Amino acid sequence: MNEVTTRTVRVELGARSYDILIGEGLIAGAGTAIAARLPGLRAAIVTDETVAALYLEPLRASLRAAGIEATPIVLPPGETTKSFSHLQTAVEAVIAARLERGDAVIALGGGVIGDLAGFVAGIVRRGMRFIQVPTTLLAQVDSSVGGKTGINSPQGKNLVGVFHQPSLVLADTQVLDSLPPREFAAGYAEVVKYGLIDRPDFFEWLERHRAGIFAGQAARAEAIAESCRAKAEVVADDEREEGRRALLNLGHTFGHALEKAVRYDPARLVHGEGVAIGMAMAHRFSVRLGLCSGQDAGRVARHLEAAGLPTRLGEVPGPGFTVAELMGAIRQDKKVSRERLTFILTRGIGEAFIAKDVEPAGLEAFLADEIAGR
Amino acid sequence: MNEVTTRTVRVELGARSYDILIGEGLIAGAGTAIAARLPGLRAAIVTDETVAALYLEPLRASLRAAGIEATPIVLPPGETTKSFSHLQTAVEAVIAARLERGDAVIALGGGVIGDLAGFVAGIVRRGMRFIQVPTTLLAQVDSSVGGKTGINSPQGKNLVGVFHQPSLVLADTQVLDSLPPREFAAGYAEVVKYGLIDRPDFFEWLERHRAGIFAGQAARAEAIAESCRAKAEVVADDEREEGRRALLNLGHTFGHALEKAVRYDPARLVHGEGVAIGMAMAHRFSVRLGLCSGQDAGRVARHLEAAGLPTRLGEVPGPGFTVAELMGAIRQDKKVSRERLTFILTRGIGEAFIAKDVEPAGLEAFLADEIAGR
Ligand SMILES: NC(=O)c1ccc[n+]([C@@H]2O[C@H](COP(=O)([O-])OP(=O)(O)OC[C@H]3O[C@@H](n4cnc5c(N)ncnc54)[C@H](O)[C@@H]3O)[C@@H](O)[C@H]2O)c1
Ligand SMILES: NC(=O)c1ccc[n+]([C@@H]2O[C@H](COP(=O)([O-])OP(=O)(O)OC[C@H]3O[C@@H](n4cnc5c(N)ncnc54)[C@H](O)[C@@H]3O)[C@@H](O)[C@H]2O)c1
Ligand SMILES: [Zn+2]
Ligand SMILES: [Zn+2]
Repeated sequence: MNEVTTRTVRVELGARSYDILIGEGLIAGAGTAIAARLPGLRAAIVTDETVAALYLEPLRASLRAAGIEATPIVLPPGETTKSFSHLQTAVEAVIAARLERGDAVIALGGGVIGDLAGFVAGIVRRGMRFIQVPTTLLAQVDSSVGGKTGINSPQGKNLVGVFHQPSLVLADTQVLDSLPPREFAAGYAEVVKYGLIDRPDFFEWLERHRAGIFAGQAARAEAIAESCRAKAEVVADDEREEGRRALLNLGHTFGHALEKAVRYDPARLVHGEGVAIGMAMAHRFSVRLGLCSGQDAGRVARHLEAAGLPTRLGEVPGPGFTVAELMGAIRQDKKVSRERLTFILTRGIGEAFIAKDVEPAGLEAFLADEIAGR
Repeated sequence: MNEVTTRTVRVELGARSYDILIGEGLIAGAGTAIAARLPGLRAAIVTDETVAALYLEPLRASLRAAGIEATPIVLPPGETTKSFSHLQTAVEAVIAARLERGDAVIALGGGVIGDLAGFVAGIVRRGMRFIQVPTTLLAQVDSSVGGKTGINSPQGKNLVGVFHQPSLVLADTQVLDSLPPREFAAGYAEVVKYGLIDRPDFFEWLERHRAGIFAGQAARAEAIAESCRAKAEVVADDEREEGRRALLNLGHTFGHALEKAVRYDPARLVHGEGVAIGMAMAHRFSVRLGLCSGQDAGRVARHLEAAGLPTRLGEVPGPGFTVAELMGAIRQDKKVSRERLTFILTRGIGEAFIAKDVEPAGLEAFLADEIAGR
């Protein structure tokens, strides 16, 4: 018999505080967990076809057993689902289910479903309850924590959305066993990110426990819990990303530019892979600016590589990148303030900081070298 | 020479507090007013074709003179513009203008434009600045105050949106001179509403000053300012409509049902006309429930009629209404909580209250009588 431990991480946001439960079997236990906290609730479950095939019926059965009726809304999988047209479909389906403000939209899936469903919950009747049941490692450690929701626009990722906090997050660590290894590794990039921002001890712990985390041992749940704690702490400090929360974008300005350049083609690059390359680049750029040691940058790249993640532009299959397309994407990124470029740079492992005056010329030269593989 | 008086009403919402300026010539003075409060701002102006023909160039000229560059986004006029497809158009145009979080979306128009543009401002980059330049009486006294934004869905009005407060509201009372008389009267229904909710003295004042308000005398600006004060007070008390703010829905549950039944055809009914009939009905329904005197209900109907507003279902041109269609619309209304119906009822002029347990059967009988013209 397995002893089942559920870890709880509390996100402190005053009246909008909520719990993240992390452990095995939480989908089977969802009905009980939700009914105990939110009696009388009705719900819609937003999910994608891939996840629906695996976990929709178990989740509905668990809800049904607790007396919670839930209307399923099944969308196609993939980043392109974060669009106006799928938003509209989901919004209208939630309204058609006659749910009220106190009822919930439940996101069952990865970050794509979480971002879209959270946006739906944020705008139907100007805000309904929202519950996250993240099923990718990325969603469990990152996108389901913090209340950022949204969709993409033709001009860039996540340019449209709202801040809308969930009432509860249920991270079932068991469901990660069905995740394609590439997706697991991609999510792991975000775990590493928390170490790199301001938790050097956690980074060292990851260096020692990486194999166990990938194999699904107890280290997995602990890595997820520590990641949620790290993100929850930053979010509690700065809910609306006016200051410190920007640190969470370590690796993301480059990462988003790459995702845009490959037109969000997951055959070429998934989000976490972009972040992995982006973090490695942020460290190399910091070395070049004389901020960070080459040793630290090397150690970061080696850890990401050991986890099966790319760290160089040349590892992305397909045609190469150009400086112009990357610079264009970087300028359009949310974090651009007027013509100065804001970047997350670092003084070493666990010492990231917000740099507000990065010079475009220096950045262009760096990108040219990275593209040339220098 | 005219002495120009600008009235200021402050909406107290802590960090989100803002001013409503009310007076003549505020479009000509917009550039100065905005630049003084929000230096360095860039903007997009969302407007409709009718309003653009009259006021877009004057507003742009005023902004330009103050050094504010503004990209115009011109949409078709009418309620059907509050749709997903126009939302998407406007969102993408704002993003294409490369505006940032601190820049502003300016709504130049009536409530349709204000609601849509406010929603755009609320979701682009998860929230940009928002400035209202309302050009209908309804928008000046109602929709531009309070932060409710949104669009319609096939299932009902305003079912999709966010709360997003403006940074500034500029209500130019002169622009109301070009408003079709029917639209002016429709907006006046909302002015009357504030008297009926909890300002019996204001209602009496309106009985005496109605003609001057319609003729554009000083009473007009005073009526607008008092309406803004009334709404601002309720909103400050209850920003997210969890309690007292529901009083502002006096006449609106019926009104929305009528608008839905005529499929938002403005040839048959505009919003304020629906509200006028709805308020008259709310009073008659209250009389029937033994809550309100017939004298008060009669006085309300007479005042609305004198202003050129309808007060009876039979005054709506076209095919008659059925109990079933009105009940269906009422149940789908946002204010329905489970199977009990929530209504704003009244004990007399200026004594409206929130009734949470209105019996569907009694309501159906009342509707049947109203339809029969009894
Ligand atoms: N809101 C935030 O704060 C935030 C933070 C980071 C990332 N994001 C967003 O998250 C998205 C990426 O999320 P993602 O990586 O989870 O992608 P995803 O949601 O597309 O999931 C990846 C793939 O795995 C499949 N899948 C999901 N769970 C599975 C399971 N248990 N077993 C088998 N297959 C499964 C999905 O169907 C999908 O095909 C991006 O859109 C990104 O912008 C948001
Ligand atoms: N957000 C809120 O709190 C709130 C409150 C009340 C109503 N509303 C919404 O407001 C909308 C109705 O607003 P409305 O009555 O202003 O309608 P509207 O915006 O459609 O304007 C009415 C008509 O007048 C024209 N117009 C506007 N200003 C003019 C001017 N100065 N001169 C000549 N023509 C002019 C417009 O082009 C339009 O054809 C509804 O969608 C309703 O749901 C919102
Ligand atoms: Zn990420
Ligand atoms: Zn109204």
